[in-house]
Amino acid sequence: MINNNYKNLKDSYLFSDIAKRVASFTSANPDKKVIRMGIGDVTLPLCTSVVNAMKSACDEMSNAATFKGYGPEQGYDFLRNAIVDYYKEQDNVELAADEVFISDGAKSDIGNITDLFSDDVNILIPDPVYPVYVDSNIMLNRNIILADANEENGFLPMPDQSVKADIVYLCSPNNPTGAVYTKEQLKIWVDYAKTNNMIILFDAAYESFIVDKDLPRSIFEIEGAKECAIEFCSFSKTAGFTGTRCGYTVVPKSLVVEGMNLNKMWLRRQTTKFNGVPYIVQKGAYAVFTSEGQKEIRANIDTYRENAKIMAETLTAKGFKFTGGINSPYLWFKCPNNMGSWEFFDFLLNNAAVVGTPGAGFGKNGEGWFRLTAFGSKENTIEAMDRLSKLTL
Amino acid sequence: MINNNYKNLKDSYLFSDIAKRVASFTSANPDKKVIRMGIGDVTLPLCTSVVNAMKSACDEMSNAATFKGYGPEQGYDFLRNAIVDYYKEQDNVELAADEVFISDGAKSDIGNITDLFSDDVNILIPDPVYPVYVDSNIMLNRNIILADANEENGFLPMPDQSVKADIVYLCSPNNPTGAVYTKEQLKIWVDYAKTNNMIILFDAAYESFIVDKDLPRSIFEIEGAKECAIEFCSFSKTAGFTGTRCGYTVVPKSLVVEGMNLNKMWLRRQTTKFNGVPYIVQKGAYAVFTSEGQKEIRANIDTYRENAKIMAETLTAKGFKFTGGINSPYLWFKCPNNMGSWEFFDFLLNNAAVVGTPGAGFGKNGEGWFRLTAFGSKENTIEAMDRLSKLTL
Repeated sequence: MINNNYKNLKDSYLFSDIAKRVASFTSANPDKKVIRMGIGDVTLPLCTSVVNAMKSACDEMSNAATFKGYGPEQGYDFLRNAIVDYYKEQDNVELAADEVFISDGAKSDIGNITDLFSDDVNILIPDPVYPVYVDSNIMLNRNIILADANEENGFLPMPDQSVKADIVYLCSPNNPTGAVYTKEQLKIWVDYAKTNNMIILFDAAYESFIVDKDLPRSIFEIEGAKECAIEFCSFSKTAGFTGTRCGYTVVPKSLVVEGMNLNKMWLRRQTTKFNGVPYIVQKGAYAVFTSEGQKEIRANIDTYRENAKIMAETLTAKGFKFTGGINSPYLWFKCPNNMGSWEFFDFLLNNAAVVGTPGAGFGKNGEGWFRLTAFGSKENTIEAMDRLSKLTL
Repeated sequence: MINNNYKNLKDSYLFSDIAKRVASFTSANPDKKVIRMGIGDVTLPLCTSVVNAMKSACDEMSNAATFKGYGPEQGYDFLRNAIVDYYKEQDNVELAADEVFISDGAKSDIGNITDLFSDDVNILIPDPVYPVYVDSNIMLNRNIILADANEENGFLPMPDQSVKADIVYLCSPNNPTGAVYTKEQLKIWVDYAKTNNMIILFDAAYESFIVDKDLPRSIFEIEGAKECAIEFCSFSKTAGFTGTRCGYTVVPKSLVVEGMNLNKMWLRRQTTKFNGVPYIVQKGAYAVFTSEGQKEIRANIDTYRENAKIMAETLTAKGFKFTGGINSPYLWFKCPNNMGSWEFFDFLLNNAAVVGTPGAGFGKNGEGWFRLTAFGSKENTIEAMDRLSKLTL
């Protein structure tokens, strides 16, 4: 009666291993200032527009005349319409409001989307990978095929005719590698998916970091994607909502597989097993799309981007090979002198008191690579890069 | 590749059918004031302590020094500990903080708990029923056995040796019937579950409406329940959080089935497919447990209870058979003159302009029964009961 597939899940010790090594370093070197560039969490506070909107919503909730009880599970129209407008303005993508589902974050939706598929499905997942893609499918004993993302393909695997899969997870800008697919590359994926009856689960959580106007922020910029793709987005990195919890998933109404309309299925899933995002949070998310809100969140993103630029310059000067950093908050580089990921982790911690994430923690192709994030303060980022640049390698 | 079980879900037209009939009545009778007692949503605003705590948390989120990014998926310790204390004080139940999982509501957890079980499991569900129990299992093609809840057993079905099931859903105080299990009855269920290796999924969303000190608010008041039960709770009806979204689920560490620890499994499920409740909302939920918060929410619950009392008195005076109303916000009564549920719905709407919910919408045993909720204003409740008492039946 118990789902025994849970026995096949590997415990992840990545961040607890990191914490242990950092604790050990700190107790041996109490005078050294450790700079943490490991975890992909934001550090800048919520912007004023968002905070004011949420406080105002709190006031609405305190008054019987404006109090909100149960809202629509799929989100309030004011927020869905704002997202439709955002897609139109930013990406020239036309969506209907009922193709946008507001949720408590991309992680929930990426995990729960597995509900819509049968257990005999074949899942293609690039390695290195955001662990949720793998674990949520191991929980269902689904056949997982890993696609190599590596130095040769710039960490952007393309379709392989010899591999048959029903569903592929793509993340661009990528976590952990920061690599970004071009429109031409995504067009190949979309065409391949349509020819082979595949569904693309497109994780666009980092879309707001794209500055290069030629790079796609949404898979729906690609012709044909509305017949084969679902897109997951988040306010977490766009507007600092990692602790405020709001995201959205786009399921086009033209996505019909085996006679089943996935938009209707997801609506049914969410109305049955979810009860919507707090009204207060939806009002905060809505403020992100006001002109003042856009100005404020852009300023925050620019701070992280400036950090990424400083980091990219340092890595370039040191002659490190890397991806990410221009259109992404992540920088992913090859460990110098053929060091292993954990070997370099210890080297960087012991010699520069800088904490990053060993690439090996994200999959076998991550071995020998290393991730740093641009989500710290500018001051710490400059200091960490100064220490890194002075390292004798 | 698609989960074809979704084809087996029946579309629910219950509330849309109700809306249509009400709209038709309103357009034919524009001068009549319709009083709605159908939907189980609260109407009183959030209490001052909760609103102030959330606004203060908004301020914390606007300052880098106090900003909160990702929190623990299973909730902040301040809230988990407050719930542990509440169980201790209210129910004399001892829990550990890591047995309490904070979520965005009981509906999500009740829907998602299905993840922990295998697909060959047999599910026992009382009828009439909260539809999520049924639909979330139809989505997985699980074998569903309905247990009759009816006038004969006071809408409180007891174990039936001739029925073999692995999991049973119990809801007490019940939605839709308002019936409440006694400690003795729950002890029989717990003993039966332990003897037969069953798991009890106990929905306690309405526990705060229990006034009778002899009735159990938590299944963990029953000896042995920690070895066979999971309990789902919510701030929705307790503190008016239907649009604010917070609940909690208790999975005892001693609940081990087929060698698998369900507490660890749920932790793994939640850390993989969920990212926690907004910090702001958790601070609001925490305020519910302060002495001021308790005073305020008790005053709100008392308002609903007073409504329920007025309703119960009216139903008694009319000679209606009913359950609920004393320890529950729902009143469930037998339609007079052997009317069918929908027949009485139309009768009540046309003759008293009062909207309720036909019991038939909750399952076959609901036919001939009718649900009214006590969540309206006192003024409307008095007026509706005045109209009902004047009806010639």
